[in-house]
Amino acid sequence: MIVAMNADATQQQIDHICERIRQFGYTPHLIQGEERTVIAAIGKGDKKEHIESLKSADGVEDAFPILQPFKLVSTEVKKERSVIKIGDIKIGDGGLVVMAGPCSVETRDQLLTTAESVAKSGAQLLRGGAYKPRTSPYEFQGLAEEGLKLLAEAREKTGLKVVTEILNAEDVDLVEQYADILQVGARNMQNFELLKKLGKVNKPVMLKRGLSATIKEFLLSAEYIVSHGNPNVMLCERGIRTFETALRNTLDLAVVPLLNELTHLPVVIDPSHGTGKRSLVPPVARAAVAIGADAIMTEVHPCPEQAWSDGPQSLRLEDFAKMMADLQPYIKLRQQAAAAA
Amino acid sequence: MIVAMNADATQQQIDHICERIRQFGYTPHLIQGEERTVIAAIGKGDKKEHIESLKSADGVEDAFPILQPFKLVSTEVKKERSVIKIGDIKIGDGGLVVMAGPCSVETRDQLLTTAESVAKSGAQLLRGGAYKPRTSPYEFQGLAEEGLKLLAEAREKTGLKVVTEILNAEDVDLVEQYADILQVGARNMQNFELLKKLGKVNKPVMLKRGLSATIKEFLLSAEYIVSHGNPNVMLCERGIRTFETALRNTLDLAVVPLLNELTHLPVVIDPSHGTGKRSLVPPVARAAVAIGADAIMTEVHPCPEQAWSDGPQSLRLEDFAKMMADLQPYIKLRQQAAAAA
Amino acid sequence: MIVAMNADATQQQIDHICERIRQFGYTPHLIQGEERTVIAAIGKGDKKEHIESLKSADGVEDAFPILQPFKLVSTEVKKERSVIKIGDIKIGDGGLVVMAGPCSVETRDQLLTTAESVAKSGAQLLRGGAYKPRTSPYEFQGLAEEGLKLLAEAREKTGLKVVTEILNAEDVDLVEQYADILQVGARNMQNFELLKKLGKVNKPVMLKRGLSATIKEFLLSAEYIVSHGNPNVMLCERGIRTFETALRNTLDLAVVPLLNELTHLPVVIDPSHGTGKRSLVPPVARAAVAIGADAIMTEVHPCPEQAWSDGPQSLRLEDFAKMMADLQPYIKLRQQAAAAA
Amino acid sequence: MIVAMNADATQQQIDHICERIRQFGYTPHLIQGEERTVIAAIGKGDKKEHIESLKSADGVEDAFPILQPFKLVSTEVKKERSVIKIGDIKIGDGGLVVMAGPCSVETRDQLLTTAESVAKSGAQLLRGGAYKPRTSPYEFQGLAEEGLKLLAEAREKTGLKVVTEILNAEDVDLVEQYADILQVGARNMQNFELLKKLGKVNKPVMLKRGLSATIKEFLLSAEYIVSHGNPNVMLCERGIRTFETALRNTLDLAVVPLLNELTHLPVVIDPSHGTGKRSLVPPVARAAVAIGADAIMTEVHPCPEQAWSDGPQSLRLEDFAKMMADLQPYIKLRQQAAAAA
Repeated sequence: MIVAMNADATQQQIDHICERIRQFGYTPHLIQGEERTVIAAIGKGDKKEHIESLKSADGVEDAFPILQPFKLVSTEVKKERSVIKIGDIKIGDGGLVVMAGPCSVETRDQLLTTAESVAKSGAQLLRGGAYKPRTSPYEFQGLAEEGLKLLAEAREKTGLKVVTEILNAEDVDLVEQYADILQVGARNMQNFELLKKLGKVNKPVMLKRGLSATIKEFLLSAEYIVSHGNPNVMLCERGIRTFETALRNTLDLAVVPLLNELTHLPVVIDPSHGTGKRSLVPPVARAAVAIGADAIMTEVHPCPEQAWSDGPQSLRLEDFAKMMADLQPYIKLRQQAAAAA
Repeated sequence: MIVAMNADATQQQIDHICERIRQFGYTPHLIQGEERTVIAAIGKGDKKEHIESLKSADGVEDAFPILQPFKLVSTEVKKERSVIKIGDIKIGDGGLVVMAGPCSVETRDQLLTTAESVAKSGAQLLRGGAYKPRTSPYEFQGLAEEGLKLLAEAREKTGLKVVTEILNAEDVDLVEQYADILQVGARNMQNFELLKKLGKVNKPVMLKRGLSATIKEFLLSAEYIVSHGNPNVMLCERGIRTFETALRNTLDLAVVPLLNELTHLPVVIDPSHGTGKRSLVPPVARAAVAIGADAIMTEVHPCPEQAWSDGPQSLRLEDFAKMMADLQPYIKLRQQAAAAA
Repeated sequence: MIVAMNADATQQQIDHICERIRQFGYTPHLIQGEERTVIAAIGKGDKKEHIESLKSADGVEDAFPILQPFKLVSTEVKKERSVIKIGDIKIGDGGLVVMAGPCSVETRDQLLTTAESVAKSGAQLLRGGAYKPRTSPYEFQGLAEEGLKLLAEAREKTGLKVVTEILNAEDVDLVEQYADILQVGARNMQNFELLKKLGKVNKPVMLKRGLSATIKEFLLSAEYIVSHGNPNVMLCERGIRTFETALRNTLDLAVVPLLNELTHLPVVIDPSHGTGKRSLVPPVARAAVAIGADAIMTEVHPCPEQAWSDGPQSLRLEDFAKMMADLQPYIKLRQQAAAAA
Repeated sequence: MIVAMNADATQQQIDHICERIRQFGYTPHLIQGEERTVIAAIGKGDKKEHIESLKSADGVEDAFPILQPFKLVSTEVKKERSVIKIGDIKIGDGGLVVMAGPCSVETRDQLLTTAESVAKSGAQLLRGGAYKPRTSPYEFQGLAEEGLKLLAEAREKTGLKVVTEILNAEDVDLVEQYADILQVGARNMQNFELLKKLGKVNKPVMLKRGLSATIKEFLLSAEYIVSHGNPNVMLCERGIRTFETALRNTLDLAVVPLLNELTHLPVVIDPSHGTGKRSLVPPVARAAVAIGADAIMTEVHPCPEQAWSDGPQSLRLEDFAKMMADLQPYIKLRQQAAAAA
């Protein structure tokens, strides 16, 4: 259930409510709004008598059940949009953040060339996989820690922050040392042990939607991370698996405004995996900006023909530069709308 | 195969090539480009010896096979984009055309109120179903000819052109008298007899993508209409059926640039059926404009709560007006891009 | 709603109830059970006061609402299984009926050779398409009436009954003259005008499930036919469209017992379209018998390599003979179970 | 590539070929057939010159490339069916093995009651989850090691072997101590780190197909386990996610014979998750036997209404007993066919 405190509720009153919530068998989560404190009491079955009892406590304005199966991530519990800060970068504040880089970290030269170029074109984060989840055991599995070190070097050189994928709960400590955002791939969206570990991490997490995950399942996976202690989760739509094989995946762009209704978490769009086809990335990125995505993530490679993975969907350096230029007027429209609101 | 004539080929030369194409067992289709005439020779198996033979004929610049299974609708056969004219309205010229109106024509008052309002807000075409394909035999099946007459009256009053659905080959003659665009619904995308009849009609056709139709099947259904004589076909993406049930359908927006690569036919987006949810229609329409759709079609009703069908996805009159205002800067960006190109 | 009459209700009482049902604005459908007459009153909204009023009428045992959206085809309205008779053949009586033959009627020789062979192997019905719904306008579209005549000739020669596809409402009169069962293909499952016409026909209809049709939609399409007057409908599962492309379709075999719970109509399984692969047809047919299908339909061709359509999924004559022999013990198990029940 | 040795090849010759394979940069895997030894050389790109070179070596009968992306699990590499032995139980030898038990291990009483009953009815393995992958963080997550201990106790009491799910690479050592078969759930089918660890385990693994996994992906996940050292893998089809929501999943039964063509690994069918509906489990189990599944796994609970998970799809103890009795004639048909072959 949700307990909304009065605007002038005292710390003592808040503590008391948390105590009572625990007595009833729920876990209290404090959400500090600009005006007031809200306490989400998470547990099985919002019992009517508990709600009634809390309603009449001192300092409480109102108490009511949470209808959605996802709780902490829902707009029922927190209406204010979450803004995730990575240094100076803010994801979720109305602006557009761009993440770009190669599918896999392959070589020092490949990574630094790409990083310098995308930084110049206006990207704020560098992507690149050091651990690669590959369908076949015979495919390139990533450079592991060596790749992480190269990402850190590129960050040093370019000022770009780093987002990179984590595959296993066991690697959390290591990857956390190098990455600014920890990415959970589509195939791991329901790797619940990994999600629980990421709930203990002090870095933002980007959770990609599973290939056949419903929106409800997607948000419940985010709930795993948040309920285990890490509120800095962003959701990434990267295309779902459907009957259509003309493109690699079917990008479900309409979920951006749908998620904005259901959750306060920021939403990222990945037009590269969403289409699997280089020429479609720029128009799809344009649509992502127009529909209100908080960030986009695109794959960029100095020479896609020679990429060790995902070549057909990787932009060339100059493609990315052109796309960024083309996106500017759309980004401006967003800023004007945000300023007007 | 395709036979590209010289820019200065004579009519006699063109006739001669058509004659030889027929002798080889193909059907010739003339495509009059701005610079030159191209002849598409359609038939089973592009035989190498036929291509070689035509290459050396007078007036022929080149001859080559068509690789795609769809022929006349493909950009292999015609690179120039098709522009469909309905009175002063042009669909496919780089601008954005807006079609709006109720799901079903219900009453004179409902239709005229809607028509006047959407016209004022900037729509160019009025939509409204007189024949309704309903999942259950016990649901409202449409007003039939009475509905068509009301649509004609609304056109008279507002200057809006009319787009309406046709369900059966038998109704073509009747519906053609009233409609400016004949719409083929998703459930009829592979009603091949209907498609063949629409190939003989002198009105443009809007073909909606089937719920589980691949892009190849979609284009082959368009090919049915075009190969039977009617080149004025536009394609409408309205959402496909996937595992996701959070929304009515999954709108496959990335097919807009994909179709632009594969076909010269204009592309329409239907954000109403594509989402099934009123609040998502405006942001999705914005994305449709940004990604390059030639037209959008949205359902509008004076009182969606009382609509006889599709209420939850219908915009109120004022919602539509607001959406149209919000779309203006995005439409301007399109016009600037078109002017620059 | 459903009105169950007393076992000894008089004709006059039944007529009176039908009259009252009409006065209330519903349409009465009489279902003559072995013990009693049941009247299904179909119309919008089962009003409580109407149900109460009818409950107290003479000759009425009980009256209650129909919960499913499909009415006449549901087991709520009729518990007894429907048995469809075509001459001596009974579909739905617990036994297994086998339909076999080529995808398309190609030549007299091809059809007669196949018919004689499958008859000898134990098939009871001959399948063969005279009208072919083809994805591309450039593919073989069927021999039309000439094909129907060949089917009739094969029936004459072999005693096999004939099942063949009907594509258009306009062809109903013609096809009805030749066919013993009229087949509605997957792409026409929601061609509602065709369904309505087939409701007026005095021949059984086999309705194939659409590629992306839910079970509810499937049964509502059957309801179109039954509610327009033709109770002799059988349902054919032929595979649905999913993300999996290893096989042509995903055969949804579990719907056989599900349909048996929801409807009294017989269920047919098509392992040929359900898999698209010849070698899988016999094991899948075996599973169809084991799971309780009332009939199976398989494609058979004297020389699949030369078939004009569906070669890869067509059994050779000897494959079919072998499959029929292998199915015998499974058919016997069914008969024993039916006898025991 | 595959190198088939002569029937009388010496150990020295085999060692020599393995050595050469390593020199070429491949990894050799020995497959000991009844008649001859086959060496699968796994690595990137089967180079023609390597194949030619090995062909002419002493003791080699033939060498040829492996066409499928999955290698060690494919029938290209090993034609003989793999039989997995768990004590006296053989999975893959033509007979039918039955695994049954509750979704989750809940209490000692629940587990022992179920185990004794299913053992009496003829099951050979007991299933039961101690670690539960749950969509929501607020749902029951399993009893963990306490559950494993109860499973071991039930094994002791009933003689049933134990199959249980493993969620994380970190738990492998623990679960291995208790389980006879380690189960990888659908959501973990592409948890590649877990698969690699299971490649080092000395217990058989049952790999469940992912909700949207293609057959190729399914076999490549099995390849991960086998190529890391564990050949005892069985594949479990448990239903895929499609547009159809009438049942929990769409059980893809036709993959049983398809997998039998592609791989030598045994195939298990799970009618409980495949349908999600108790009443459909027995007919679907019957079909699974008829189509050739090597084993079936069904959920059974003493009181499904009170089950902590999966109640609607769990059989009651008496349902399971009845199903087992009904399956007997179908199992006999299988044995007769196996004896005849």
